[in-house]
Amino acid sequence: MRLTVTYHIAGPTRTAAANAADIAFEQTVELSPDAVSPEVAQRVAGRVESVTTLGRGRSAAVISYDPALVCGDLPQLLNLLFGNISLKAGILVADVAWPEELLAALHGPALGIAGVRDLSRVHGRPLLCTALKPLGLSAAELAERAHRFALAGIDLIKDDHSLVDQLTAPFRDRVERCQEAVGRANRATGGNTLYFPNVTGAPMELAARATFARNAGCRGVVVNALPAGLGGLRPLGATGLAVVSHPSLAGVFFHENHGIVPAVLLGDLFRIAGSDAVIYPNVGGRFTFSEATCVAINERLRRPLGPVAPAFPVPAGGIDAARVPHWIERYGADTIFLLGASLYRHQDWASAAQRLVDAVRRHGDG
Amino acid sequence: MRLTVTYHIAGPTRTAAANAADIAFEQTVELSPDAVSPEVAQRVAGRVESVTTLGRGRSAAVISYDPALVCGDLPQLLNLLFGNISLKAGILVADVAWPEELLAALHGPALGIAGVRDLSRVHGRPLLCTALKPLGLSAAELAERAHRFALAGIDLIKDDHSLVDQLTAPFRDRVERCQEAVGRANRATGGNTLYFPNVTGAPMELAARATFARNAGCRGVVVNALPAGLGGLRPLGATGLAVVSHPSLAGVFFHENHGIVPAVLLGDLFRIAGSDAVIYPNVGGRFTFSEATCVAINERLRRPLGPVAPAFPVPAGGIDAARVPHWIERYGADTIFLLGASLYRHQDWASAAQRLVDAVRRHGDG
Repeated sequence: MRLTVTYHIAGPTRTAAANAADIAFEQTVELSPDAVSPEVAQRVAGRVESVTTLGRGRSAAVISYDPALVCGDLPQLLNLLFGNISLKAGILVADVAWPEELLAALHGPALGIAGVRDLSRVHGRPLLCTALKPLGLSAAELAERAHRFALAGIDLIKDDHSLVDQLTAPFRDRVERCQEAVGRANRATGGNTLYFPNVTGAPMELAARATFARNAGCRGVVVNALPAGLGGLRPLGATGLAVVSHPSLAGVFFHENHGIVPAVLLGDLFRIAGSDAVIYPNVGGRFTFSEATCVAINERLRRPLGPVAPAFPVPAGGIDAARVPHWIERYGADTIFLLGASLYRHQDWASAAQRLVDAVRRHGDG
Repeated sequence: MRLTVTYHIAGPTRTAAANAADIAFEQTVELSPDAVSPEVAQRVAGRVESVTTLGRGRSAAVISYDPALVCGDLPQLLNLLFGNISLKAGILVADVAWPEELLAALHGPALGIAGVRDLSRVHGRPLLCTALKPLGLSAAELAERAHRFALAGIDLIKDDHSLVDQLTAPFRDRVERCQEAVGRANRATGGNTLYFPNVTGAPMELAARATFARNAGCRGVVVNALPAGLGGLRPLGATGLAVVSHPSLAGVFFHENHGIVPAVLLGDLFRIAGSDAVIYPNVGGRFTFSEATCVAINERLRRPLGPVAPAFPVPAGGIDAARVPHWIERYGADTIFLLGASLYRHQDWASAAQRLVDAVRRHGDG
């Protein structure tokens, strides 16, 4: 099977076939057909499988590529799907069909939903996650928040994605203190709250931070997948740590007529790159996804995909605590709900967290 | 001095101030003002310096950040400038003013224009670059092309940005053969053509490929900066290799009302991240930049910028060989002209390359 990409192309129907052929050559041989030998073109250029009109000045072109062109390499996968043509107007990656051989080479999440459930010892219900914030608090203050969230029974406590190594809460100090605080709460409650620090950084810093986190006893980490580079996720997962990917910067891809649709980028590519869980902005919060987009991301993260394990969807971005039962009904148990801002809005956010935990656990018993 | 960002915001003037305040909080504390202590907000949140109307439903908001929030870390810089707000509509990073302290921490290119000129021993004229293509040729066939381009006197010969480690021309085999072929041509001509292989890959592969290239005698490399992760450029430059960044995937940022303008992304960020030279699609070629955009990128790459060395602009993407003298007049001598497709269009592309070299050298003498 070939790597098969559906591009939506804006433009008049009469040029749709030529535009599709342009993409097929631009993304591979980077030459026009008259400058490539027919033998090389036949062997290497993308193959236009079909072109159909979508109406309103758009066409769908299905183009297939030899999966061996990817070399099992995530950056090259991005390059092949959309690298050069990102610089042309009116092209959208609307869907991708993945050959088994490519999925096996890219591997996907090391733990997946089942592995994260084992780490957190939560089965049969959704997980609750919150974020340590705001940037600017000291490591001791963040650790105090972690302690109170863990006492309340939150399953996962993650660093806000802007906490890096600022002097206010340097990475190592923060990780040691927060991990200690969560461990102390677990011993008090008999619970098993996990703390996932943010390890985003340039490649060497990211690797050093992940190693430090693991040695400090953390079982997972958060990474801003696109700023750090999607190719960095798999080595992170190979260390045994759960990888939670944050969608920072992902919005640049999400234009109606240009980019990569959210379900493919966050649902397929983030998963295939090695995310055990993918954070995305839920409908009705501070950001702009529709409910259909959220449902499509969930479906892509969890669907059977050859040898690639399913990954947790993590809706976030301003989920109202009172609406969590609704979202559980809508999204199902294999979901991690991330609530930050809507808890911190309460003067007594620790009690708000406690009420939320009770509601979710009741749901799990039901 | 603070890191000062000009955002263009689409929306009614009456909400412009509120939208600017949202950005200032979203990009730092990720909480609304009522959920952050005034002391933390004052110390850490972005500061709205001004909001002015641009007409046609757009406003310019100047927001400044404490440069210490960046931690000298490229991924965190991207995150701070546009991470979460990429997921909101109608926000464009139109300009950035860089504090010296941040530039010193991020460092920029290790070689810059002067260093690349020293490597190539070309002074007082533009450099000519071509690309080995197409994908699908064997390493021996690509090496044969490299040999003929080097005999013609092309200054830099780079791999096409899709050449990774495909079975048709595996990385190590390709690098050894092409480097050998170029060296053989140099010995025959007394010239000094350089061969820069593409080392794009996930972090460990990228590092291993760069080391291999250096040991094979290469003096520089090409990397798809965004797919590989901008944070990977500086470690690459620290190996002593010249870093030529390719703009694959960059087009996702370039929307009129959303993203990061080309001059800031390719001109400032790619340079500050550590590119010695930045490839971009020239006006009039296969892609969509205006001449004003190209000139702005050139200006940003070369302008004085504290301790950050100037980097070479590399206009590309379908430059007509006959028009090169025009572009030299327009862009000046501190430019690398990358011509691939327009040479390969000629049956006898080696002679076309020779004529181009003669034209550029005459220009340098003039």
